[in-house]
Amino acid sequence: MPHPFPSNSIGLVSPQTAHFTEPLALDCGRALVAYDLVYESYGTLNADHSNAVLICHALSGDHHVAGYYEDDPTKPGWWDNCIGPGRPIDTGAFFVVCCNNLGGCKGSTGPTAINPETRKPHGPDFPIVTVKDWVRSQARLADRLGIIQWAAIIGGSLGGMQAMQWAITFPDRVRHALVIAAAPRLSAMNIAFNEVARQAILSDPDFHHGHYYEFGVVPRRGLMLARMLGHITYLSDEGMRAKFGRELREGKIDFNFNFDTEFQVESYLRHQGHAFVDRFDANTYLLITKTLDYFDPAADFDQDLSVAFHRALARFLVVSFTSDWRFAPARSREIVQALVRAGREVSYVEIPSEFGHDAFLMPIPLYHDTLRAYLTRVAQEVNAHAA
Amino acid sequence: MPHPFPSNSIGLVSPQTAHFTEPLALDCGRALVAYDLVYESYGTLNADHSNAVLICHALSGDHHVAGYYEDDPTKPGWWDNCIGPGRPIDTGAFFVVCCNNLGGCKGSTGPTAINPETRKPHGPDFPIVTVKDWVRSQARLADRLGIIQWAAIIGGSLGGMQAMQWAITFPDRVRHALVIAAAPRLSAMNIAFNEVARQAILSDPDFHHGHYYEFGVVPRRGLMLARMLGHITYLSDEGMRAKFGRELREGKIDFNFNFDTEFQVESYLRHQGHAFVDRFDANTYLLITKTLDYFDPAADFDQDLSVAFHRALARFLVVSFTSDWRFAPARSREIVQALVRAGREVSYVEIPSEFGHDAFLMPIPLYHDTLRAYLTRVAQEVNAHAA
Repeated sequence: MPHPFPSNSIGLVSPQTAHFTEPLALDCGRALVAYDLVYESYGTLNADHSNAVLICHALSGDHHVAGYYEDDPTKPGWWDNCIGPGRPIDTGAFFVVCCNNLGGCKGSTGPTAINPETRKPHGPDFPIVTVKDWVRSQARLADRLGIIQWAAIIGGSLGGMQAMQWAITFPDRVRHALVIAAAPRLSAMNIAFNEVARQAILSDPDFHHGHYYEFGVVPRRGLMLARMLGHITYLSDEGMRAKFGRELREGKIDFNFNFDTEFQVESYLRHQGHAFVDRFDANTYLLITKTLDYFDPAADFDQDLSVAFHRALARFLVVSFTSDWRFAPARSREIVQALVRAGREVSYVEIPSEFGHDAFLMPIPLYHDTLRAYLTRVAQEVNAHAA
Repeated sequence: MPHPFPSNSIGLVSPQTAHFTEPLALDCGRALVAYDLVYESYGTLNADHSNAVLICHALSGDHHVAGYYEDDPTKPGWWDNCIGPGRPIDTGAFFVVCCNNLGGCKGSTGPTAINPETRKPHGPDFPIVTVKDWVRSQARLADRLGIIQWAAIIGGSLGGMQAMQWAITFPDRVRHALVIAAAPRLSAMNIAFNEVARQAILSDPDFHHGHYYEFGVVPRRGLMLARMLGHITYLSDEGMRAKFGRELREGKIDFNFNFDTEFQVESYLRHQGHAFVDRFDANTYLLITKTLDYFDPAADFDQDLSVAFHRALARFLVVSFTSDWRFAPARSREIVQALVRAGREVSYVEIPSEFGHDAFLMPIPLYHDTLRAYLTRVAQEVNAHAA
């Protein structure tokens, strides 16, 4: 009996693994001798390989971006609402690819992977990777799949930073870059929040300098705190007010010193923290927050982002959300201004929303209509080129 | 040889302790049988006791609000820039009082105080206190000092909440309430930040359910994380950008997995966290964050703050700061609107600043001029009444 998936769902999907044996030189000066990238793909690559779309994931995302796994038919991929036949990222038109980034903990080589030399997890010996490293590794995956040029590269948050970096590093391999809820680089406040999250993990006695795997423990408390804190920055004040207000969980104030959850928002955050610990690795969290902090594409161009974009050949869609204070609309407008000064073609849309940074994952009609309209034009280009 | 204090400094000061033996019934249902309040006072109480000003402190503040201690002549009180002869809160005109709040850790009875029955610190057995409890205890201190009515009650942040509560609870004992960088109550996001701070302390293995004193340890890691996080919410994105930018501490990116501080903002936050652990108690931090979360003066008045203010007789000055996102100007405007609807006299000033919430402690000229002008009028009233 078939699973009762929605009619415009991509349905059952399964990940694949690409193994690479050519060493990858990293920005940190070290190299990965060999590595795996786990990825998913949906839709069909057309004859001239011109309809491929790369999705880049954010901090805690992974390659399972749409559809369902056979063994978990109730929980779709993290951006399923946007990807499928007839959805904004239309798998009827595009061949959609997403890989778990290097350093991740969902199957691509990262701190949790076994180091063949020591037969133990890499742990803290895994090198720090950068957005540029990711882009280079993704380019090798594209080579493997026979994709010379992506019709579009799409990402939200840290994913949007990868889309930007692709357009700068590989100008002739990206026709369109869709940069959503991103920033040209992190602000001091962004870095400060990451630093508190890192300190929470590093100061957890179960962290064991990153070698916790060998002790049969994980730094649960630290990772939970990091996620709770992160989660606050993904929401907005007005969104939280609408969702939780000051609702008390049991209907009354407790007034003792045991600090059980009293307000709904406390309960929600603790749940988010607990759930995260079961699905994410602390070393990967440390690593990817550093990847975020280091991202600075203008650094190679005398701190002038427009000079960086001068290299790019892609056309851009930049999207921001009004209540996003992690990467506020002003940060997206910095990207747009640099693109305009660089003479690039760019469309900019600011979506009214109270969902904060998380809005980029939400099926907000104006947002999805925007993606749909833009990508319909991209699909028309693909068809015109193929015809 | 006299200390070279600035000429408009109040100079050397010393704290005093008031011991109370009449039991204080608390909102939580319990009572304090006896308690101490440590306080400081500056200036001279006039003949008809009409020139007294109460300063209420915020989360991590205390009674040492101005002047210098003999044994630490380099570090003035926390609001010294605003209080002294000729300063905005002019000790030539006013008798200024500030006490460490109940539940504090600087001399007033709180979790660190010895419980005479057990001869151990109260620790987690200390009752949760509310802003209303504080106001009632401060009223007893006023009785002790012979102050029937305060010329003004002044406070920033949680201190401003106490000023509001005073005007509601003791209408005839407050002529002016100066409510600075405050909010009518905490938002879900405010509570969420407090909850992460509490979880950091509660999950520290050195917390020992609050009985850490008996183990000869303190939950340093948790308290440090709580303070680092709090500190981010006291600053603003633009202020941090101006102060730290993305300056690297050693001039270059480290690119290894040891997570030493690299960016200046990281170093600053860690320093703030470390310094706080040496001067503050974790149980007090837990308690006062709950005091903040519970503050809701409208709750007794069917959630209509204007009905609460209808009782008040004081005139109000409400001050907010443009870049304060902890208690944003919009929250101050809620207070102003409720006051106006209640028919109260209120002046409202929004001060341009990039210092975030911390601005209420800064000697911003427009801010200090505002306080000076308002309090000059209050002093004139005092003189007119005395004449």
